Amino acid sequence: MSIKCGIVGAAGFAGIELVRVALRHPEFELVAVTSNELAGTPVAKEYPCFTGATDLAFSRHDDPVLDQCDVVFLAVPHTAAMAMAPRIVDRGGVVVDLSADFRLKDPAVYERWYKVPHTQTELLKRAAFGLPELFPDDLIAAAQQRKEGKGAVVGCAGCYPTATTLAAAPAVRLGLVDDKAPIVVDAISGVTGAGKKATARTHFCFANENLEAYGVATHRHTPEIEQILGVSDRLVFTPHLAPLNRGLLSTVNLPLAAEATRDVTKIVESYKEFYRDSAFVTVLDAGVMPKTSSVVGTNCAHIGLAVNERVGMLIAVGAIDNLCKGAANQAVQCANIVFGLPEDLGLDKVAVPV
Amino acid sequence: MSIKCGIVGAAGFAGIELVRVALRHPEFELVAVTSNELAGTPVAKEYPCFTGATDLAFSRHDDPVLDQCDVVFLAVPHTAAMAMAPRIVDRGGVVVDLSADFRLKDPAVYERWYKVPHTQTELLKRAAFGLPELFPDDLIAAAQQRKEGKGAVVGCAGCYPTATTLAAAPAVRLGLVDDKAPIVVDAISGVTGAGKKATARTHFCFANENLEAYGVATHRHTPEIEQILGVSDRLVFTPHLAPLNRGLLSTVNLPLAAEATRDVTKIVESYKEFYRDSAFVTVLDAGVMPKTSSVVGTNCAHIGLAVNERVGMLIAVGAIDNLCKGAANQAVQCANIVFGLPEDLGLDKVAVPV
Amino acid sequence: MSIKCGIVGAAGFAGIELVRVALRHPEFELVAVTSNELAGTPVAKEYPCFTGATDLAFSRHDDPVLDQCDVVFLAVPHTAAMAMAPRIVDRGGVVVDLSADFRLKDPAVYERWYKVPHTQTELLKRAAFGLPELFPDDLIAAAQQRKEGKGAVVGCAGCYPTATTLAAAPAVRLGLVDDKAPIVVDAISGVTGAGKKATARTHFCFANENLEAYGVATHRHTPEIEQILGVSDRLVFTPHLAPLNRGLLSTVNLPLAAEATRDVTKIVESYKEFYRDSAFVTVLDAGVMPKTSSVVGTNCAHIGLAVNERVGMLIAVGAIDNLCKGAANQAVQCANIVFGLPEDLGLDKVAVPV
Amino acid sequence: MSIKCGIVGAAGFAGIELVRVALRHPEFELVAVTSNELAGTPVAKEYPCFTGATDLAFSRHDDPVLDQCDVVFLAVPHTAAMAMAPRIVDRGGVVVDLSADFRLKDPAVYERWYKVPHTQTELLKRAAFGLPELFPDDLIAAAQQRKEGKGAVVGCAGCYPTATTLAAAPAVRLGLVDDKAPIVVDAISGVTGAGKKATARTHFCFANENLEAYGVATHRHTPEIEQILGVSDRLVFTPHLAPLNRGLLSTVNLPLAAEATRDVTKIVESYKEFYRDSAFVTVLDAGVMPKTSSVVGTNCAHIGLAVNERVGMLIAVGAIDNLCKGAANQAVQCANIVFGLPEDLGLDKVAVPV
Repeated sequence: MSIKCGIVGAAGFAGIELVRVALRHPEFELVAVTSNELAGTPVAKEYPCFTGATDLAFSRHDDPVLDQCDVVFLAVPHTAAMAMAPRIVDRGGVVVDLSADFRLKDPAVYERWYKVPHTQTELLKRAAFGLPELFPDDLIAAAQQRKEGKGAVVGCAGCYPTATTLAAAPAVRLGLVDDKAPIVVDAISGVTGAGKKATARTHFCFANENLEAYGVATHRHTPEIEQILGVSDRLVFTPHLAPLNRGLLSTVNLPLAAEATRDVTKIVESYKEFYRDSAFVTVLDAGVMPKTSSVVGTNCAHIGLAVNERVGMLIAVGAIDNLCKGAANQAVQCANIVFGLPEDLGLDKVAVPV
Repeated sequence: MSIKCGIVGAAGFAGIELVRVALRHPEFELVAVTSNELAGTPVAKEYPCFTGATDLAFSRHDDPVLDQCDVVFLAVPHTAAMAMAPRIVDRGGVVVDLSADFRLKDPAVYERWYKVPHTQTELLKRAAFGLPELFPDDLIAAAQQRKEGKGAVVGCAGCYPTATTLAAAPAVRLGLVDDKAPIVVDAISGVTGAGKKATARTHFCFANENLEAYGVATHRHTPEIEQILGVSDRLVFTPHLAPLNRGLLSTVNLPLAAEATRDVTKIVESYKEFYRDSAFVTVLDAGVMPKTSSVVGTNCAHIGLAVNERVGMLIAVGAIDNLCKGAANQAVQCANIVFGLPEDLGLDKVAVPV
Repeated sequence: MSIKCGIVGAAGFAGIELVRVALRHPEFELVAVTSNELAGTPVAKEYPCFTGATDLAFSRHDDPVLDQCDVVFLAVPHTAAMAMAPRIVDRGGVVVDLSADFRLKDPAVYERWYKVPHTQTELLKRAAFGLPELFPDDLIAAAQQRKEGKGAVVGCAGCYPTATTLAAAPAVRLGLVDDKAPIVVDAISGVTGAGKKATARTHFCFANENLEAYGVATHRHTPEIEQILGVSDRLVFTPHLAPLNRGLLSTVNLPLAAEATRDVTKIVESYKEFYRDSAFVTVLDAGVMPKTSSVVGTNCAHIGLAVNERVGMLIAVGAIDNLCKGAANQAVQCANIVFGLPEDLGLDKVAVPV
Repeated sequence: MSIKCGIVGAAGFAGIELVRVALRHPEFELVAVTSNELAGTPVAKEYPCFTGATDLAFSRHDDPVLDQCDVVFLAVPHTAAMAMAPRIVDRGGVVVDLSADFRLKDPAVYERWYKVPHTQTELLKRAAFGLPELFPDDLIAAAQQRKEGKGAVVGCAGCYPTATTLAAAPAVRLGLVDDKAPIVVDAISGVTGAGKKATARTHFCFANENLEAYGVATHRHTPEIEQILGVSDRLVFTPHLAPLNRGLLSTVNLPLAAEATRDVTKIVESYKEFYRDSAFVTVLDAGVMPKTSSVVGTNCAHIGLAVNERVGMLIAVGAIDNLCKGAANQAVQCANIVFGLPEDLGLDKVAVPV
């Protein structure tokens, strides 16, 4: 099989990581990489790591080659994605969207957090949620739609929601979590999470040797995490920025239900059972905490668990690479499933050891 | 006034920062810096930033010069500190201890968390808690004892407790916080917090480009934070390590009491009033979050506040330099007070801007 | 004495470091800080480390308060500095310029490297070269001019020239260096050297975990270094960028004259003698190499020396903080001298130890 | 083909990178990874990035499984390697040695720089020099020996020599370089180059935010570089340490012969021709300088060239990943050739873009 593949918004950090993965993928043929800003520039000029590896140059977002693509990855801002998706799906193509446009099931929630109306509510209804370990059926349904020539759209989970809910969802679904008390999530991201745009925030000298919280009580990943976990107005989510390139760690504080076990070893076993068939998620042994460096550059997630018995709290910590499992590589994992390929095809599982 | 000053355990990270501050202090005369491991080595050889600034060499912990010191700072591990303190206090000297030995008021709590009995319970009763903004009377009492020739002992607050409780205590003391729900604290520290010992954890290549949680549900600063805030078995505290040298950020999630205001502007005003006379604590305007880089190298703490109205949670974020306000400089602030000096004498308040 | 002081271009990295130093200086009264871009913004809003320390806000470059300043520091790009200087000098004020406009003695050399004509050649003739350890007489002459009410102008040495020539000049002046062979200088700078502007080069994610050379064979500090050392067309200078904020290391390869000693201990002694009276320059013992971390935040320079006997090469390595001895603090050192104050007044000499 | 492969000294930084590459290699079967210190510990416990990827545990260096290996990589200190090599070669196995034991052709030079006698001078005579782009015939000869059942030994080039000579050798071999003047090499390495051992030098807090030179005039890679370039007592080599994990940049200052061209475009063309068939070496266009981040994690080398016409100097800058092209991946490239495989089999060529 050779799957013609286009990447819209390929010059940003998620987009260029997609380029890297698509070029390595044994079944993908990368035919279009777009960036309105850099149209005409060779990829290898903007990102010299591709020197000798590809002659592709960025084209504009309206590149007609996209019309021939079996799959188009959208790594553009929200609203831009939903403007582009219908044309692709209507001709039977597959859209894998990395923006927020096809994540939130309720258009009213989308409008509340993103301050714009959702203009593709019909497409939104069909959209698969792109977090394969938690919503496998969504992607199977999308695969079926594709087979039937109807096209398909996947709204990939965000970076914080991915790390957070991979760590939290098993406990919630297994009924271990109190169904009223707040869930506090404090997460830390590397600076690639702040995007490619050169700003005061992303300036080396301001980001380096600094820690800060941002988007406190207002970050748009909040409703997405609540939707995945099936909770309402219970999430307190604070993201933080730390001086590293890649890596995202989410520390999830889950209040245990009165009747739930406090035995962390049992909880670890339940989690291992939950992710038994997962190619990418590893639950660490009780007492072992994940390091983001162990998953950087890969589609893997590592999860560590501890119980605070005094307070009755499960602390679940998830580590991912924000650009990989948190964005580009997870998008390819989703595409693999939609095209009936092994979900791990072309995706790295072993980080550089140091 | 010339206050003769000794530093025991001067070669570690807190100890050597004390050396730096003591040398700049207009009223201190630094006469002894000890390190059993480096005895005989000039300070400037181990730490070349002191080249030309001091001819002092490390001596052993039993250096008789310590017996002539007006104040001895103890930057040694717990248990070592309480073994050394009585000799100093008994002759009317002042001990400023940076270990945990004189922090926890209840010896049983000390024994539970540190797994050793407390051997100086009488001295512990007199010990002032070294966090001047929250326990000014403790230090005034110690100053009085010193004046009366009885010596004094100060047990300085730990780094995480300092950042955490400076951010949380006003809300708690003002009755804004629910008195039953858990308080979740997720904090991040630079690698100086892990100490000078060269280990796998402190190796550049393992700490760099990595994020991880540690001491989950077991960190010994937990009971100290609970003691300061006056709460029992309600704290869930998770520290994290990030790749920077200095800096500590504590994000405190405080469940608001049912009747408490949700208006962050009002809460900010209350906090500003609370710290009105503080030389070192700044409460940032509503919506502004602190950066650790803004306080690095200084004894300052910056506090940011936000309210999550959906959940009824106050998020209070405190930023300090873990070696300064979190250790050495706060110790000097305490000593200043005990000796009747302005509390900010010899202490920096302006970080390098970049 | 209270010296009224203004800083033009105060929002950039050198400018804001000047603000920090000026605020600490016991004889300076900082009355104007200008930035056309940030006019109206409080300094503490743009750089939160100044919170509580100053209420100053940036004003425009044409702020009339500058006309009342005893000394005006110019931290603006070249050409802008020489446009502003005459007005200040003409009324008897002192200009301390951090740009390149008053460094190169020969206007033709200036024009060749900076591609614009020099428009203030008369003022250039009077300008003192601001590198006190190597050109003390220049500054003494400027002090005399100031006393006589004629005003004065100092063209401060650049960052690379400062580190390079402090390491190289003693050997050259002592006749140790071959007078024909090339002098190769490879230097490394932290990212503050690339300035405050947010660009692809200064983006955290591109600067972090990267090393690169830049300005190879074309860097404008080349003629300045040649001028200081008194050599022509013999310098090969390559600057490099490394992932740290502050710090500049210059490795200077000096071909030894045939008759010169190869005994590094003797050369070290000559250097120590050369800098005997220097408040800021330390020559390390033979075999010890400087670390930039030992001088960061201070006006100090550390110099290490080694001899490659096989090839007959002296390797002289200089370490400074590029924003301090390489810019702002050296500017204050120069101002101190021009105003007859101790050269080290208000300037730090001890870096944070870790 | 399935090549049984062992790695001795697999727990160090070069060794563990070898483990990563060997596990991905389509023709290698990794059967033994040894570390006396960590014998019995699962690889994935010491390096959690291997969780789920291998069940191998470290065994001792005398693991009998090594006797069944077709190829044994030695990532042990010098002298240890030459003690182990004969046993493997004598039974027809292939040794790929990453230590210095089989690099220097002249045992007297080895003894002078390493202060121990060479005990395997016969094996040394047969040893191929492991730098395929510059010494392809050596590896072809080794391949032939292997085929004939005589075993083979490859002494892989060191990290600094690889980056330095890939940048310098074309100019030297093409006769562009003056044959008497000194060649000055200033190189910068990330901290993985300092090894896994936790020391003051590798402590995060001392390596971070610091630059320093080390091994000035004494570094053992000096004679290796001279041997490769075919020069005697003309090299001045100074390595530097900078705060990043992986990456090595070597700036080579080559004095041009009087009659050699000064036209950098022509020199770039010659270099491109020189490396025309190379799978891994890229010569950048005139005026473009390499970034280490562009090759990190790969076996690639990027080379940038500039001419200083004033002085008549060619500046050639080489960028590699010190653990990849500078160690483990180059070792696999050598093994590929010795076993008659494509030289790039199993080796990455595209770095993560950011």
